[in-house]
Amino acid sequence: MSLKMNREELADYLAEIFPQVREDFVIDALSEDGVTMRLLTAERHLRPGGTVSGPSMFALADVSVYAIVLARLGRQALAVTTNCSMDFMRKPRGDVAMIAQCRLLKLGRSLAVGDVLILSEGSDAPVARATMTYSIPPVGSTAADSG
Amino acid sequence: MSLKMNREELADYLAEIFPQVREDFVIDALSEDGVTMRLLTAERHLRPGGTVSGPSMFALADVSVYAIVLARLGRQALAVTTNCSMDFMRKPRGDVAMIAQCRLLKLGRSLAVGDVLILSEGSDAPVARATMTYSIPPVGSTAADSG
Amino acid sequence: MSLKMNREELADYLAEIFPQVREDFVIDALSEDGVTMRLLTAERHLRPGGTVSGPSMFALADVSVYAIVLARLGRQALAVTTNCSMDFMRKPRGDVAMIAQCRLLKLGRSLAVGDVLILSEGSDAPVARATMTYSIPPVGSTAADSG
Amino acid sequence: MSLKMNREELADYLAEIFPQVREDFVIDALSEDGVTMRLLTAERHLRPGGTVSGPSMFALADVSVYAIVLARLGRQALAVTTNCSMDFMRKPRGDVAMIAQCRLLKLGRSLAVGDVLILSEGSDAPVARATMTYSIPPVGSTAADSG
Repeated sequence: MSLKMNREELADYLAEIFPQVREDFVIDALSEDGVTMRLLTAERHLRPGGTVSGPSMFALADVSVYAIVLARLGRQALAVTTNCSMDFMRKPRGDVAMIAQCRLLKLGRSLAVGDVLILSEGSDAPVARATMTYSIPPVGSTAADSG
Repeated sequence: MSLKMNREELADYLAEIFPQVREDFVIDALSEDGVTMRLLTAERHLRPGGTVSGPSMFALADVSVYAIVLARLGRQALAVTTNCSMDFMRKPRGDVAMIAQCRLLKLGRSLAVGDVLILSEGSDAPVARATMTYSIPPVGSTAADSG
Repeated sequence: MSLKMNREELADYLAEIFPQVREDFVIDALSEDGVTMRLLTAERHLRPGGTVSGPSMFALADVSVYAIVLARLGRQALAVTTNCSMDFMRKPRGDVAMIAQCRLLKLGRSLAVGDVLILSEGSDAPVARATMTYSIPPVGSTAADSG
Repeated sequence: MSLKMNREELADYLAEIFPQVREDFVIDALSEDGVTMRLLTAERHLRPGGTVSGPSMFALADVSVYAIVLARLGRQALAVTTNCSMDFMRKPRGDVAMIAQCRLLKLGRSLAVGDVLILSEGSDAPVARATMTYSIPPVGSTAADSG
């Protein structure tokens, strides 16, 4: 049980494979058990009324679990989201960052599960929670589908 | 059991309240029981490898259930997503539209539930499925939170 | 795409491997695409107020998806539930059978997904819906864990 | 933010309203933020192979969230499960108790959300996780349906 990438290596790798989202996410902390990820809330993440959009929170939760899986398995790993459950519990603030606290609950041979608590920076009341399952195809496969 | 808006009125209203997503979604069909919604897949919806991103499919499912709830309740209605579950089952094509077939399963006093089957246009094999729950605050409330 | 067991063979096999639930479930119909399963509602499935308990509906959904996976893969198949999402939408009747209409949405190399609509017999309004994911370990493995 | 019932009062009340499950569950700890609940694993909770059944784990998660909602709102409260998501991550042991660690994430006017980590006693590796949403009808309503 150890990390194959440190925080800087992981950030570089995510920026390389997700050029579209490079400016959105910052890794605040990384350990063997999980990751804390930050969404740099910007106009493109907002909905009318100044709240953060559901798809933006989905993306934050998804990239968080993906990041800890990659950090544990290394760059060569393939991992495909197969399931997501989310609860939206409070109105998010649109004028501060969103913080995702992600715990890796399982890292098996073929499935990884992480759960994520999402908060508006500066508040302790959770805005949303998510659980993401990733399918991990055997090394050498082409990830043509998700299992 | 009837619709408060027809397809054209609903499309106009969605474009008015979601200016950010105006160019993404088209309503193909609308009935009392559900809606068929199309995502006009574009570069901004893609991930490396040419597949449609998870957040884009989340947005498609979310707007589909929102649309049928609005069509049934009318413009004055408030509705806030409280829960989502999604399964990602096959690799989506990035070069065709995505089609969401949404059924309204419940429209209660305070909760609405819809499920959505998502396909790549021209294929019968589902790419993803989603269920969305919306909380419907009493008329006159301010939707400060989601219940 | 074909069935490895017909309805009678599947019913016998389920009764053999699930002796605890033999008296609870009846297979009404079976096809390559899904199964219709009936819960013979009895006192042990009820909650105060005469409604069917959540765990009983969970069991009905779970066995439905398991049944269609077995019917497609055959007796030697292992399959372990890895994920469930359920929505409880209406109060079930405790004095009639519950009907589960299950569709197999995906049967992949390592994952199967089915969704289930649950109704009280004689009514068209869905009481609950569920989606179940099964992990299918490679033949020859011991299913020591779920992936 | 305080408790309307202490641990003993809550245990008595649950035994009174759920006579069927009186012998299954024990409340280990109760605070404003959550509850720790124990399933006294017995033959009736098992599946072939000696693992705890899915419906038994569903029941454990469901009663845990229900218990903390009742403890916070008091005896007169109505609360109906509307949504559940569960991930089954490891094989449970059938020869020890199961422990549910439940956190109350939201207690709103009309919705409550709790998440639950389920472990086999004596192990730190989570067997399952669940999130349950309860709808809380206004006092005086009859809970004829779930919202």
